[in-house]
Amino acid sequence: MAQQARGTRSRRSILEAAARVFDERGYDGASTTDILVRTGLARGALYHHFASKEAIAIALIEAQTEALVAPPNEVKLQATIDLTLEFARRLQRDPVLRASVRLTVEQTSFTYPERTPYQWSTEVIAALLAEAAEQGEILPDADLDELTTFIVGAFTGVQLMSQVYSGRQDLLERVTSMWRLLLPGFATPAMISRLRTTPAQES
Amino acid sequence: MAQQARGTRSRRSILEAAARVFDERGYDGASTTDILVRTGLARGALYHHFASKEAIAIALIEAQTEALVAPPNEVKLQATIDLTLEFARRLQRDPVLRASVRLTVEQTSFTYPERTPYQWSTEVIAALLAEAAEQGEILPDADLDELTTFIVGAFTGVQLMSQVYSGRQDLLERVTSMWRLLLPGFATPAMISRLRTTPAQES
Repeated sequence: MAQQARGTRSRRSILEAAARVFDERGYDGASTTDILVRTGLARGALYHHFASKEAIAIALIEAQTEALVAPPNEVKLQATIDLTLEFARRLQRDPVLRASVRLTVEQTSFTYPERTPYQWSTEVIAALLAEAAEQGEILPDADLDELTTFIVGAFTGVQLMSQVYSGRQDLLERVTSMWRLLLPGFATPAMISRLRTTPAQES
Repeated sequence: MAQQARGTRSRRSILEAAARVFDERGYDGASTTDILVRTGLARGALYHHFASKEAIAIALIEAQTEALVAPPNEVKLQATIDLTLEFARRLQRDPVLRASVRLTVEQTSFTYPERTPYQWSTEVIAALLAEAAEQGEILPDADLDELTTFIVGAFTGVQLMSQVYSGRQDLLERVTSMWRLLLPGFATPAMISRLRTTPAQES
């Protein structure tokens, strides 16, 4: 058990070190040696967890799925909004998630699995919107596929601009804006008046 | 005159070659030698136009301004929509514009002038929306700054996803989607019924 905990810890420390190195040098400019120097681990310990730089990048990208769990809420549009706000908050705080998003957005020599992270977000949001539609939260003529695709694309661009303008400090306000502007196009008027588009109080 | 035309041609051919090289190797992976090999020009000809790789990147980024001219239209929301559709169409066809957008979106060792291209788009769209509001095309309680910022961010993300999923083949449909979903939140109902969100016929 203690050994497993140690293993998990060093795996996470490799991912965090790799996130920082990729952030500074980009994927192509980074080497496993740079990552090792940051962790203070022996090369063997790194290869125990990851066979290559590409394997580290894949694990980093997969870390996005952890941030794609919808918070429980009877009102499915509220759950959708809260998912994006919580993802935004984690982007502000978690270097591993930031690296994951950057690896998704940029074209580097590492291209597999380039569509997958968008597909994960798309699936999670599509499922939430389908439930919301079933519960009558969405206008009957809304095209759910079109809406889902646009939400994923718009969020991607919004977080990118927030990164450039403010190092993501204004990201939550920008996500709130996105929902305030989008909801009238597809949510029922009764829903719009009930939904909160700002972050819930921190617990 | 003939000499000036030749100069413009070789400047453009350097930008096109650089666009292709940056596209394949990324900014940090590309060298001026790679660019020279593509153009078939002598090194002196390249340095006559551009002092460095960074100078080429700046010129590429500035090429975006050429694609940010609003088509004339009395209806300012139609002009705004057509600007984004035309920008999308040029992204599909023009490798220089594609490289320009990529240099804007990615974090490389080349960071100056990172905010500027977003500012150009923001200024052009803000001016169009201000005119649209004055003409009564926009709902009176719309926040134009918020709207402008979101349109620029959403377009950025939409084009990025279109690139990943279809090499930008579905970009026009995605931009049409964006407007169909956004207009109900800020355009007057009378306007919405008049606006075309699909591309005009090719001339």
